[in-house]
Amino acid sequence: MSRYIYADNAATTPVSEPVLEAMLPFLKEEYGNPSSIYQKGRAALAAIEHARVQTANALGCEPGEIYFTGCGSEADNWALKAAVMALAKKGKTHLITTVFEHHAILHTAQKLERLGCQVTYLPVSPEGLVDPADVAAAIRPETALVSVMYANNEIGTIQPIAEIGAICRERGVWFHTDAVQAVGNVEIDVKAQNIDMLSLSAHKFHGPKGVGALYLRRGIALPNLLDGGGQERGHRAGTENVASIVGLGRAIELACDPAAIARKREHLTPLRDRIIAAALELPHTRLNGDPVKRLPGTINLSFEGVEGESLLLMLDLNGIAASSGSACTSGSLDPSHVLLSLGLTHDVAHGSLRLSLAEDITEEEADYIIETIPTVVARLRAMSPLWEKIVKAEQ
Amino acid sequence: MSRYIYADNAATTPVSEPVLEAMLPFLKEEYGNPSSIYQKGRAALAAIEHARVQTANALGCEPGEIYFTGCGSEADNWALKAAVMALAKKGKTHLITTVFEHHAILHTAQKLERLGCQVTYLPVSPEGLVDPADVAAAIRPETALVSVMYANNEIGTIQPIAEIGAICRERGVWFHTDAVQAVGNVEIDVKAQNIDMLSLSAHKFHGPKGVGALYLRRGIALPNLLDGGGQERGHRAGTENVASIVGLGRAIELACDPAAIARKREHLTPLRDRIIAAALELPHTRLNGDPVKRLPGTINLSFEGVEGESLLLMLDLNGIAASSGSACTSGSLDPSHVLLSLGLTHDVAHGSLRLSLAEDITEEEADYIIETIPTVVARLRAMSPLWEKIVKAEQ
Repeated sequence: MSRYIYADNAATTPVSEPVLEAMLPFLKEEYGNPSSIYQKGRAALAAIEHARVQTANALGCEPGEIYFTGCGSEADNWALKAAVMALAKKGKTHLITTVFEHHAILHTAQKLERLGCQVTYLPVSPEGLVDPADVAAAIRPETALVSVMYANNEIGTIQPIAEIGAICRERGVWFHTDAVQAVGNVEIDVKAQNIDMLSLSAHKFHGPKGVGALYLRRGIALPNLLDGGGQERGHRAGTENVASIVGLGRAIELACDPAAIARKREHLTPLRDRIIAAALELPHTRLNGDPVKRLPGTINLSFEGVEGESLLLMLDLNGIAASSGSACTSGSLDPSHVLLSLGLTHDVAHGSLRLSLAEDITEEEADYIIETIPTVVARLRAMSPLWEKIVKAEQ
Repeated sequence: MSRYIYADNAATTPVSEPVLEAMLPFLKEEYGNPSSIYQKGRAALAAIEHARVQTANALGCEPGEIYFTGCGSEADNWALKAAVMALAKKGKTHLITTVFEHHAILHTAQKLERLGCQVTYLPVSPEGLVDPADVAAAIRPETALVSVMYANNEIGTIQPIAEIGAICRERGVWFHTDAVQAVGNVEIDVKAQNIDMLSLSAHKFHGPKGVGALYLRRGIALPNLLDGGGQERGHRAGTENVASIVGLGRAIELACDPAAIARKREHLTPLRDRIIAAALELPHTRLNGDPVKRLPGTINLSFEGVEGESLLLMLDLNGIAASSGSACTSGSLDPSHVLLSLGLTHDVAHGSLRLSLAEDITEEEADYIIETIPTVVARLRAMSPLWEKIVKAEQ
């Protein structure tokens, strides 16, 4: 079968042609170190400063508020660890986050907890939404930071970021959001939304892997995570990854153009909903996450009596690349903490499938997904002792 | 003038053709996330595991002892911060390093000092060499880690790493070396040299910027610097930078081939020494660092009465790209801490020039450098009030 549908864009996306084109000169002749004062160095410096402007424009902030990092996880680690370290001196040792964050936040919060930080993990609704009232109720005088992800990486639900931002600003608490899944999918305006810190990762929106950024509102002084040279205005050591930063800049410019976001939303939403509706016709199948407040291309389904990994392997054989929850935790046998946070049982959480569509998916490709899922699910259920039990219990 | 001689390879090197060729598929069609179980994911995973083998072969260790990072500075930060954190529980809160480390080590050590760690900064000889006896004398029962750079980034002196390694192993103290400047220039065998941890950075040996590695001897358990997903066997979060890791693997395989190292040494050493000898014919000029125990392509000279930055700009106008000390600190007005550690005065340290030659530099290009330096130095001295003073004092 020659068809290949890549439906795992939440895990990573291909580098687009214009992005690679922007990068290549900096992998070839423009190899200067941006800290060097001769011409090649100055050219590299100018290129990363242009990328900083592109990134700032996409988020609605100043270029001086953007710091490039080695990945989204580094930006998350930096934001949390440094904010807690900066405010611990003032007696602020409490962190608020949610139970269903990406592991870059969750594991960082857990480490901070072991080091003496108090952490509140807010619950989420069965639809995978954080309640701003819960944030407000959890804030204490010693709260240093609230960190709530913009859009969940597994189920795609979009959180009420502006409401949470307003609460944090009013209460004088710093607000960070892991926007790795959101950038390029929703319109972000860090100033209007009262966001103090925001993490992003280029490879989620057709930029290269290995480069991310932290937006840090002017006026917030954080210690460094990576100490050393004077790069990033003294705040992030390491020779700048010029080609990848240039790629990030071009990718975010393309992905966050409001017309591109609107086009993506208008194209993907009906396809997404058609795939969801078709899947839900199967018995003992559920959609995970709010049906409306979700990323335009992200679908998360649970098929009872089916093992997620087998589902992925069968789909792969049928030319569909998908995932079962987060790519970062595949290899682990634990069921997804995100799905458990919605109240799913281990069994149901194990039988989950995430499809994250590319903006250029065709109607025909969506039809192929719609045709393939029931066949694959039926075949796996036919072999499943668990499914047999479910059917017997019903009779 | 159409000539362009890039003589700042200690700052960064161009990505070589075979390295870029190895990377490109992973910037194009092979875009899978290595954590994904479908074919594109497995291909990406296989590629990074191949790069891990290439890296391990270059250092003389097992692939399972290599951890890829976002840059050399990240590897340095990880090694020091994590080692101190791991051993603090056992009451080991003392760190030994040297006064002339790269800032990724020095600033990290200073931060650890502010957090309660005791740090010994060993002096270096006027020739820029660390004395192993000083290391031995500085070790105390509470010493957690010794970190001594393999080759200095500004002056190129090569340290007695095997001797220091033997002392540390015998005394039961972990030994880390920042080998960012050494990889590809000297033969490294971490096992024979008793190195426990080693940092490297791809862009110093014709790999891409934005990727490095930490060698960590099996049996040493360090906490993570970047927490999150399960990448790098759970020790370094963040989606793997597949293309750049593949580039690092190919670059280190080419650069660390013993024949390539020998060829580079044999080609560069006489050219380096010819440039040094010619420069030393100028009055009030000195070579910084040991004349013999130095990297084959690294030259560091001080011209009294000359300001380093003007020298670089004039050389740039004459088609020679060089630096004045470390690229990571250019932009700073402070004189190089490395040169000061050799006992140079501020004035002399300010007038320094680092030339770091590429392996493919020609005799003719070396001649051009030899011709250009005296002209440029003479022109700058003619305009320099400081030089006027020096000459007057002599009369």
